Amino acid sequence: MREVFHQSLEDVQTRLVEIADLVAVAMEGATRAFGTGDVALAEEVIENDQVIDDKAIELDELAIEILARQQPVARDLRIVVAALRVSASLERMGDIAEHIAQLTRMRFPERAIPKGLKSTFTKMGEIDVEVARTLADLLRTEDLDLVNKLSELDDQLDALHLSVFEKVLSEAWQGEAAATVDATLASRYHERFGDHALSVAKKVSYLATGTWAADIEGVDAV
Amino acid sequence: MREVFHQSLEDVQTRLVEIADLVAVAMEGATRAFGTGDVALAEEVIENDQVIDDKAIELDELAIEILARQQPVARDLRIVVAALRVSASLERMGDIAEHIAQLTRMRFPERAIPKGLKSTFTKMGEIDVEVARTLADLLRTEDLDLVNKLSELDDQLDALHLSVFEKVLSEAWQGEAAATVDATLASRYHERFGDHALSVAKKVSYLATGTWAADIEGVDAV
Repeated sequence: MREVFHQSLEDVQTRLVEIADLVAVAMEGATRAFGTGDVALAEEVIENDQVIDDKAIELDELAIEILARQQPVARDLRIVVAALRVSASLERMGDIAEHIAQLTRMRFPERAIPKGLKSTFTKMGEIDVEVARTLADLLRTEDLDLVNKLSELDDQLDALHLSVFEKVLSEAWQGEAAATVDATLASRYHERFGDHALSVAKKVSYLATGTWAADIEGVDAV
Repeated sequence: MREVFHQSLEDVQTRLVEIADLVAVAMEGATRAFGTGDVALAEEVIENDQVIDDKAIELDELAIEILARQQPVARDLRIVVAALRVSASLERMGDIAEHIAQLTRMRFPERAIPKGLKSTFTKMGEIDVEVARTLADLLRTEDLDLVNKLSELDDQLDALHLSVFEKVLSEAWQGEAAATVDATLASRYHERFGDHALSVAKKVSYLATGTWAADIEGVDAV
């Protein structure tokens, strides 16, 4: 029975890694499309989000089946519950990639990336892609050093997010309302992506070390 | 054992309703503060969000304990797993109320509510409060007619959200960048609040009727 359980847990882990890899691909596509105004690529990201959603649902079903059949307790139980939460966060990260792609499509044939903020959003996009890849690595390897790395990347995203508002609210900002709306939404999306990743990282860290409350704490909502 | 389990489930339900009631109070305060520029009330909402977070964590712990001790299966198991998801959604709804309060505080002594959009945001705020109260009622009574009501309220929020963008992107919009940023964020927050409520409603509906996939489907991310 124990062996079956650990086989099941490995299956859960494999699937979480797979979803995280898909999220990384989605974010890579979304930020590239956003930077270049590539609407075909944006469409692709939007379409592929369904795959992430489906895989998250399948994983939830697997987790519920494990709870029902193998009735884990203690740490094993917490791992399964954590997997349910991680899958929800990954699904939302996929949705964020989709939102960025939608912003690109909405502005086509113009570029969604507001003038004067190109380098900032390029940087945010690069960090988000690194966040997604690091998160997949963390789920694959359970190397807790990656939690700190994700925390640092998230700090960088927060700082860039603030810098977008500073720019937009400065005297020098020449953007029209559409550019201001785009900058606000895009910056929010990029920043939230990091929050969700950090939430997953804290969950992984909790499973290794034991404190649960840290999770809700650091994670901003919406 | 069955009796103990049903006692535990009632306890879970009571706590969910309690958190939903707190979310309704938070949203009521947040929208009132946003409309009137009442920064003291905004501070109160921000402070009280910790209570919601703590209660959500306690509920999660209770759910995990029920899984461990009573090892429910089939529908009972799904109810407990759903409770974990519902508590996460309620916690996020509380965070949204906090974000609206933070927007109010950030703009003080100015009013955060952008000129020309006062009636729109008053309406969105009223609907969000109704959403929160309806959701608490749904969790209390399990009256599935309330799911349809929440779905209609969410449609109204979506329409108002779109109308904000139409206004902000119209030739007639005279707002400065700060007003555009505020309108964008506030509208997004108000609209997301409805999404989370609908996600909970679908979960409740699923438990009564049986289809799980509907959940992720209709719910927008971030």
